[in-house]
Amino acid sequence: MPVPPKKSKKGPTPEPGDEVLAICEGREFRGILLPPSLKDDSFITIKLDSGYNIGIQKGKITKIEVLKKGEARLTAKKEQSTTPAPSSPFTSFISCGGTIVNKIDYRTGAVHPAVSPRELIEGLPALSKYSIRARMLFSIASEDMSPWHWVRIAEAVAGEIKDGAYGVVLAHGTDTMHYTSAALSFMLQNLPCPVIFTGSQRSSDRGSSDAEANLLSSFLAANSDLSGVFVCMHENTDDETCLLHFGAKVRKMHTSRRDAFRSISSLPAARVWPFLEKIEKVSERCPARSPNSKLTVDTKLNTKVAMQYIYPGLRPEAFKQLFDYDGVVLVGFGLGHVPVNLSGEKNSYSLLLQIKELIASGIPVVLSSQAMYGRINLNVYTNQRVLREAGVIGHMCDMTPETAYVKLMWVLGREKKMGKIKELMEKNIAGEITERTEFSSY
Amino acid sequence: MPVPPKKSKKGPTPEPGDEVLAICEGREFRGILLPPSLKDDSFITIKLDSGYNIGIQKGKITKIEVLKKGEARLTAKKEQSTTPAPSSPFTSFISCGGTIVNKIDYRTGAVHPAVSPRELIEGLPALSKYSIRARMLFSIASEDMSPWHWVRIAEAVAGEIKDGAYGVVLAHGTDTMHYTSAALSFMLQNLPCPVIFTGSQRSSDRGSSDAEANLLSSFLAANSDLSGVFVCMHENTDDETCLLHFGAKVRKMHTSRRDAFRSISSLPAARVWPFLEKIEKVSERCPARSPNSKLTVDTKLNTKVAMQYIYPGLRPEAFKQLFDYDGVVLVGFGLGHVPVNLSGEKNSYSLLLQIKELIASGIPVVLSSQAMYGRINLNVYTNQRVLREAGVIGHMCDMTPETAYVKLMWVLGREKKMGKIKELMEKNIAGEITERTEFSSY
Repeated sequence: MPVPPKKSKKGPTPEPGDEVLAICEGREFRGILLPPSLKDDSFITIKLDSGYNIGIQKGKITKIEVLKKGEARLTAKKEQSTTPAPSSPFTSFISCGGTIVNKIDYRTGAVHPAVSPRELIEGLPALSKYSIRARMLFSIASEDMSPWHWVRIAEAVAGEIKDGAYGVVLAHGTDTMHYTSAALSFMLQNLPCPVIFTGSQRSSDRGSSDAEANLLSSFLAANSDLSGVFVCMHENTDDETCLLHFGAKVRKMHTSRRDAFRSISSLPAARVWPFLEKIEKVSERCPARSPNSKLTVDTKLNTKVAMQYIYPGLRPEAFKQLFDYDGVVLVGFGLGHVPVNLSGEKNSYSLLLQIKELIASGIPVVLSSQAMYGRINLNVYTNQRVLREAGVIGHMCDMTPETAYVKLMWVLGREKKMGKIKELMEKNIAGEITERTEFSSY
Repeated sequence: MPVPPKKSKKGPTPEPGDEVLAICEGREFRGILLPPSLKDDSFITIKLDSGYNIGIQKGKITKIEVLKKGEARLTAKKEQSTTPAPSSPFTSFISCGGTIVNKIDYRTGAVHPAVSPRELIEGLPALSKYSIRARMLFSIASEDMSPWHWVRIAEAVAGEIKDGAYGVVLAHGTDTMHYTSAALSFMLQNLPCPVIFTGSQRSSDRGSSDAEANLLSSFLAANSDLSGVFVCMHENTDDETCLLHFGAKVRKMHTSRRDAFRSISSLPAARVWPFLEKIEKVSERCPARSPNSKLTVDTKLNTKVAMQYIYPGLRPEAFKQLFDYDGVVLVGFGLGHVPVNLSGEKNSYSLLLQIKELIASGIPVVLSSQAMYGRINLNVYTNQRVLREAGVIGHMCDMTPETAYVKLMWVLGREKKMGKIKELMEKNIAGEITERTEFSSY
């Protein structure tokens, strides 16, 4: 039977959000009291000044006192966070899963999903100034996100905006966040407000977690005068600034660092100082909040699209299966190259011929670059002109391979004609292609 | 009939390497006289001070005079560049093709192969202090390089070293240079001297070409006190410094910029000031020149290896063909994730099951990250432990996907047993895995 904690005789009852001092087995623990665990109520959890969370068995607590009440709003918010009056301005917080809602299992050292979106928010008193409507849409790791999930997320965001959300924050795993943010960039157009993806590289109950700065920055951004789909993550390894990246111009570029996300072939949209509560535009391309803008929701996708990495020694067998798709994104070399002639190999074959055949059979072939940064340019080399003449799509585009893949699914969801597909793919729709190269974006 | 240029009555006959003044149709052209074209001798070519090359029809030249003779060595070198005495110390220059030996066709604007390695060297008087043995091995674009070519290049380099080369410089197209440099890192071990890959992002007859700084830096590096396989390219957009990257820790990261090459999860080996003739170590891991080291040449590859990019919405069909290979490199997410469960899709399937089946049928599966930077770590998430238990290879490795692919070919060329393959893949052999993460390498 769980034993209730002994409260100090005087003073208010400690509530989540309060700064408390607890004494357990002679040791003092000082920090913010977090909401009780949904799974096990025999513990209380305190966020220590070091940033680490500590779980203390209630039965072992000899004294607990409130040092400072949490802001009044925090308590009021509890109600709002479930069902705020639709007329009042609120920030929507949708959790899709990922490390940010994970906890470390200290027995095994492994990380698994554990925190509800409300618990996450209430652990951060600085968020108490916002009226937040929180909901959990999915609780999955981002590697398990699929185009099916992208559609559900887009619909959920559209629903929140329809209900009057002033801005939307999405918690999402980092591994495929840039795929999902690209998908929403195409699916949700003419956004009246900002839609901010965020996550963390270290789970939010760890002292070194980047979750707090990312969440504070995301709520600032969601309430800013911008509009559009963005990814908000650390700028570098300290907590001072986060960057807001355009949803279709960003990529996870490091397996573990807090500043894993980088704008690719684009300046970031804005810089956010989470603890100074400041936000400054970096790119001129940032669209302004437009409350009267009529949101267009267009989630139809043709998911029969393949992404094919090109590499020396690529065998013809790899290409055969591509004929079963409705569209192909090649991740080629440099400015946009594929091996034309593998003369040294025994099974010599022309990849060019296979590309021509794909296009001839009505399958659009989009070329992107494994260099990741920079623009495809099919004007430079003689070999490339052959690709252009064959009808390869992607000339002068600076889309990442991932954005090109998501976009092709979206374009094929509404167009069947090769000419129209090419036109849409090579035209900027959601900030995925920049007209001019911004010099400092590499 | 080509008309010989009218020479000025006094002074020496202009020879390649001389600084000349030519007058043509009333205009003066001042610069370095380049060797005559092999294809068309009705023109002379002058490298102008602006860096651009200009071709002038001999018949239209009213006067040409030598302003300054090229260094005596340049003439002497002509002989050496074909057959230097094997006993004398020489730098070997092997041309494999690429933009650095290309010329712009001013009629079409396209770029095509045109310059011989000797022409390239003789266009740069600063190289005249080196005794250079130059040869053309291939003249192909780097997208057409295949594992077959890697073997030929390794054999050619080994031959030059056997003949007494003090260092080797290789001209190579940039698109797949990092694949070839990784291949040579595994094929040529215990190198007594430096083997330097270089190339250019803009052809060497253009004013903005990066060829000169890259070549000068490469020859400096080839004659330095280092050993090993390196890539030498611009550090940034000016010509002041180039970087020497470890051959198995580098990647082309931009489609067009001069500083397209970046060290990945590693500091660069060294920094080179081409015009100050200075070279400084950056990384502690740089091996020193060791003239007594006995070169090991081991070029055997098993090229039946596939590289498979992982992305949300990946279909089971894509995995079927992988069973036809002897090894597979997965380019997964973040720390090392693949979709375990595509629950939302109609054709729900477990990728994990397919990976287990691949391994059970004796096909090694190596995991790398599409984040490019950072280390694979299969200890963090519960889902990943399943991958580890299934026998996936790559834990704690910070190899680029391209290096992992090349290495797997090389390892499969000598090992058949799964345990031994795993052991070799996860062990540092040629500088491809760093023990400690160098903080400033992202």
